[in-house]
Amino acid sequence: MTTLIEGKTVAQKIFDNLAHEISLLEKKPSLAVIIVGDDPASKIYVNLKKKKAHELGITSQVIELDESVSEQELLKKIDSLNNDPAVNAILVQMPLPEHINPVNVIEKINPLKDVDCFHPYNIGRIATGNKSYVYPCTPKGIFRLLDFYNIPVEGKHAVVVGRSNIVGRPLAQMLLNENATVTICHSRTKNLSEITKTADILISAAGCPALIKKDMVKDGAVVIDVGINRKSDGKLCGDVDFENVKEKASFITPVPGGVGPMTICSLMCNTMDLFKLQN
Amino acid sequence: MTTLIEGKTVAQKIFDNLAHEISLLEKKPSLAVIIVGDDPASKIYVNLKKKKAHELGITSQVIELDESVSEQELLKKIDSLNNDPAVNAILVQMPLPEHINPVNVIEKINPLKDVDCFHPYNIGRIATGNKSYVYPCTPKGIFRLLDFYNIPVEGKHAVVVGRSNIVGRPLAQMLLNENATVTICHSRTKNLSEITKTADILISAAGCPALIKKDMVKDGAVVIDVGINRKSDGKLCGDVDFENVKEKASFITPVPGGVGPMTICSLMCNTMDLFKLQN
Repeated sequence: MTTLIEGKTVAQKIFDNLAHEISLLEKKPSLAVIIVGDDPASKIYVNLKKKKAHELGITSQVIELDESVSEQELLKKIDSLNNDPAVNAILVQMPLPEHINPVNVIEKINPLKDVDCFHPYNIGRIATGNKSYVYPCTPKGIFRLLDFYNIPVEGKHAVVVGRSNIVGRPLAQMLLNENATVTICHSRTKNLSEITKTADILISAAGCPALIKKDMVKDGAVVIDVGINRKSDGKLCGDVDFENVKEKASFITPVPGGVGPMTICSLMCNTMDLFKLQN
Repeated sequence: MTTLIEGKTVAQKIFDNLAHEISLLEKKPSLAVIIVGDDPASKIYVNLKKKKAHELGITSQVIELDESVSEQELLKKIDSLNNDPAVNAILVQMPLPEHINPVNVIEKINPLKDVDCFHPYNIGRIATGNKSYVYPCTPKGIFRLLDFYNIPVEGKHAVVVGRSNIVGRPLAQMLLNENATVTICHSRTKNLSEITKTADILISAAGCPALIKKDMVKDGAVVIDVGINRKSDGKLCGDVDFENVKEKASFITPVPGGVGPMTICSLMCNTMDLFKLQN
């Protein structure tokens, strides 16, 4: 029998606890979000973050910079936020205009305020099995789901499909830190099916609809779908052929409503964690 | 037919080229090695590094600190080397006495002078698929061997046994950066044989004699043995049951004489690379 992993429900419980914890604080955690340009999707995401922060009692500010801002000016702005004791957490909404090097921007953020956990120093801490100030939002969200449903990781074979810096790569490191045997697949992987079939825990973060089919999944596998793809009818779907794969999986995340809600949840928890480190 | 990967030969070619390149320089690359205490094995390793540096024309200094040195004093010493423009590369010989936290020591070294490539910032650069100032010595040495013997990595399934920060973990990241499908196994892996048998490239860095047996290896696999273990008769051996595994492997490294010589080779090349970045 398959258990549906209800990310929305888990996220809500965490939000309720967090809102309560923050309500007891005199000084509130503070998040600064920088957005460059007018990309509509970015504006939607930033508004969601601002709204959620407000609901939880987190102070937030959104700094809107023009599309034409120079890399130099953007770095100066980040620097001033780094040096502002009233700001605990900083994120720069991606993507950035082409004339700005995102690596330089990511590395300008003080690792102690790096709420997205993109800075190589923080990634390096995780990749060397050390504790980090924060953890990347989506991988951390996935771990919260696994914890909530008491899904063991140690000794399991975890297969991660996708090697982005935002999800696949840090997730693989975190799974390794929890003693899973980890395989990372990607677009150059030759025999994807053979490999995914050996997974006790299969996580797809490839951005490819219907990538993961029923015959690619072991009986009883835990299937985590990180994909967010828009179908021709406008509806959202993941990387997993949900209707068919769910018959085989012991646990499965739907899209939407699975991993998605956990990402913003992690962002808010990260903001709180950084606040605690600084106060 | 099996090809023996002759690390000693490859290392010597690289040393010859490096010595020649350095002989043409007016200003020489400079390496500082800190050793704390009197551990005999550490002294041997440091002397080897000093000797090799001298042979190549690299200026080196060995700073010997007493076993009882405080962490604070050691960090101060590193700081002075960080600020010394005459020093291009710094390493602290491990292990350190128990009262000193190695993570603090590693993180004190300026990433631009981090010749061992242990600093989380450098590891994070590699783990995010970015270019790094340097690469960890043993993994880099392994890549030099693969290059020398024209062994392709892209699209291959690479299985790394062992997850140390010195070898297994960074090696897995570097293999991923070269588009291999990567699996990392370790002491909590449940079905090691099943996994190693799927490897096109099998690298063992577990420190466990006769761990890798013939029936754990696919026909034609490339077998890289990073293990350095001492047998009861005093002789060195790797993790691989060499005599039997070699019948199946297309390429195999012996121990000693395979990966070992490439590590110090990488250290010297790293010193040169850091010198070039700073001059």
